[in-house]
Amino acid sequence: MTDFTKTRAAFHVPDGVIYLDGNSLGPMPVAAASRVAQTLQGEWAEMLIGGWNKAGWLAQPTLLSDRIGNLIGAGAGTVMLGQTLSIQVFQALAAALSLRPERRVILSDSGNFPSDLYIANGLIDSLGQGHELRLVAPEDIAGAIDEDVAVLMLTEVDYRTGRLHNMKDLTAKAHKAGALTLWDLAHSAGALPVDVTGTSADFATGCTYKYLNAGPGAPAFIYVAPCHIDEIRPALSGWLGHAAPFDFAPVFEPANGIERMRIGTPPVLAMAALEAALDIWADVSMRDVRAASISLSERFIAGVGKHCPELELASPKDPLARGSQVSFRFENGYAVIQALISRGVIGDFRAPDIMRFGITPLYLNENDIDRAVAILADILKSRAWDDVAFKTRSTVT
Amino acid sequence: MTDFTKTRAAFHVPDGVIYLDGNSLGPMPVAAASRVAQTLQGEWAEMLIGGWNKAGWLAQPTLLSDRIGNLIGAGAGTVMLGQTLSIQVFQALAAALSLRPERRVILSDSGNFPSDLYIANGLIDSLGQGHELRLVAPEDIAGAIDEDVAVLMLTEVDYRTGRLHNMKDLTAKAHKAGALTLWDLAHSAGALPVDVTGTSADFATGCTYKYLNAGPGAPAFIYVAPCHIDEIRPALSGWLGHAAPFDFAPVFEPANGIERMRIGTPPVLAMAALEAALDIWADVSMRDVRAASISLSERFIAGVGKHCPELELASPKDPLARGSQVSFRFENGYAVIQALISRGVIGDFRAPDIMRFGITPLYLNENDIDRAVAILADILKSRAWDDVAFKTRSTVT
Repeated sequence: MTDFTKTRAAFHVPDGVIYLDGNSLGPMPVAAASRVAQTLQGEWAEMLIGGWNKAGWLAQPTLLSDRIGNLIGAGAGTVMLGQTLSIQVFQALAAALSLRPERRVILSDSGNFPSDLYIANGLIDSLGQGHELRLVAPEDIAGAIDEDVAVLMLTEVDYRTGRLHNMKDLTAKAHKAGALTLWDLAHSAGALPVDVTGTSADFATGCTYKYLNAGPGAPAFIYVAPCHIDEIRPALSGWLGHAAPFDFAPVFEPANGIERMRIGTPPVLAMAALEAALDIWADVSMRDVRAASISLSERFIAGVGKHCPELELASPKDPLARGSQVSFRFENGYAVIQALISRGVIGDFRAPDIMRFGITPLYLNENDIDRAVAILADILKSRAWDDVAFKTRSTVT
Repeated sequence: MTDFTKTRAAFHVPDGVIYLDGNSLGPMPVAAASRVAQTLQGEWAEMLIGGWNKAGWLAQPTLLSDRIGNLIGAGAGTVMLGQTLSIQVFQALAAALSLRPERRVILSDSGNFPSDLYIANGLIDSLGQGHELRLVAPEDIAGAIDEDVAVLMLTEVDYRTGRLHNMKDLTAKAHKAGALTLWDLAHSAGALPVDVTGTSADFATGCTYKYLNAGPGAPAFIYVAPCHIDEIRPALSGWLGHAAPFDFAPVFEPANGIERMRIGTPPVLAMAALEAALDIWADVSMRDVRAASISLSERFIAGVGKHCPELELASPKDPLARGSQVSFRFENGYAVIQALISRGVIGDFRAPDIMRFGITPLYLNENDIDRAVAILADILKSRAWDDVAFKTRSTVT
């Protein structure tokens, strides 16, 4: 059994704060500070250029990638870390399109991250080959998969509502139509069990700063199914993806397997924080995390249902149809979230009226949930939205 | 006058080390350790998601970009930081090609970074529009610029020999032929005066972990001339390049000006180290750096000429035709570099026979140069290459 008292102690959460925004940016693992300090003072400062070998900076992305693979059902040598999520989505989408050269449709849904759609926009424009990004409602995806589709590009968990797509069924349906799948796991990795191998996903991407708690701007990852990797010439073909990067040959030759998806020099400080964040998962079972997440979410929904009847559940009622977040609709949601934050309960707001709460058992317990419900009920009773201080929107909440 | 005693004190160089590899990875600014610690413990840990606004993480890339702009002759709002150099080269090259849709040649030279050539390979393959990467010898570049050329893509300073291209003349020649220019400043920024505005460069890219000393895997930058920026729809169109990223609209609309070249979430820890590294430049004149670099380089070349006659200068003799490094050819160069490193003089080796030494006045002085020459002479006298310990090649030196 996972010891959630132990994992809770592994994070720094400020006194008095109940942090329900780990789906946006996870809190700092206590060990991250000393790990990064060691990378600076024990490695960069003392080893200088020698750190690439002596401190293992060059090999580190591969090692950490396999540890992330463990969390998403990916075999060793199928995941590669580096860059930002947008870059990894570009890399995966370009590769997928290259494997279906006769098809022109990228199918996605209106619940996908806009950021992923933007990357598709840019790739389509720059290719200039008449590709189309076709968007349908999340519930219409299954019916929209046809033989024009090159790639089904979806985010498993809707960032607003928490609605969970069925990766296995949709992937099977895509494959039946001859299409490939690209799954964004930004709100899945570290949040719930994922099985990219068992669901036969072709490509997946994800970030490490949400449920994996690796820090602001931490690196993203890409998964490529072993059956495809040898056919891929990466669109973003960087020197560390070369078969022999230190030969400095003039023409790109892809490295074996997933190593070809490396691009540029790895972000060493961010990798150090990520390593500390991944250490926490060593004794954690993702099944336990899922069970605890469902238990806490149900408790939160029940408490809100009882004490805050003004709020309408925007997430699926069925816990198996949700990721690890709970969202509510409320017309004054922005002001309520600001009032919550001012009282130490940190959730966030997504326009036009979604109040979003990440449920993260690694550092949240039942007492936190009960306190959050009580404070929320108190704010609703006091009609916080009448207070002008909570009405001005800032860019990020 | 720049106070190089003061700048020297701003870096941590281990006792007994003479660091002649700052052209590969600069040493740690002393302030970087506390700055990064503050970002972890004072910002991420305490502010959590609030750090994006309260700690200024979101605005920071723009502010630091303008400070880099100051070092390369770029106006405010023309430089954008983020991602790795390979990504920025891709972004710039894709944009340049989109501005010359009727042309098909990317012209470069055999002295360019292989990494830049690989990015061109990948872009050409993924576009599938019959573009050609045409490589000529560095000295043949001027004669190879013709009206087929869409983009002249060059690295100003040759990473092996230190040979310096004439940015102004080659840019003028490219423009006369209707071509655009993309200058990689990886070995220029922080090494010598650069004037992207005065030379009328169209695009430039560079990294911050060499002469700018921002640490392993520090972010790269892109410069886009103001006359082009409004015409560019970035191929890598990430959410932070959107005109209204927090509206979460489904279609990409480029932000005003250089902000459209932002891609994903900024690497906050790396930005903190970069900020500390850029602080050192506040009281530094790039002309003074250039003068000191030439003086130290000439001293090094003269010393080696006198005491190490076995070595052949591989860099241009004329200091105005060199960047801020000095290279020598020697058939046993690999073993000699290993022997130097074992005695605290850190240079590096590039196959087949180049010994490379970065000359960085911010933390090197005449005494360092003289000691390096003396140790090098001693190693040559002792025929270090007969020692089997120095014969096995590792991947990175």
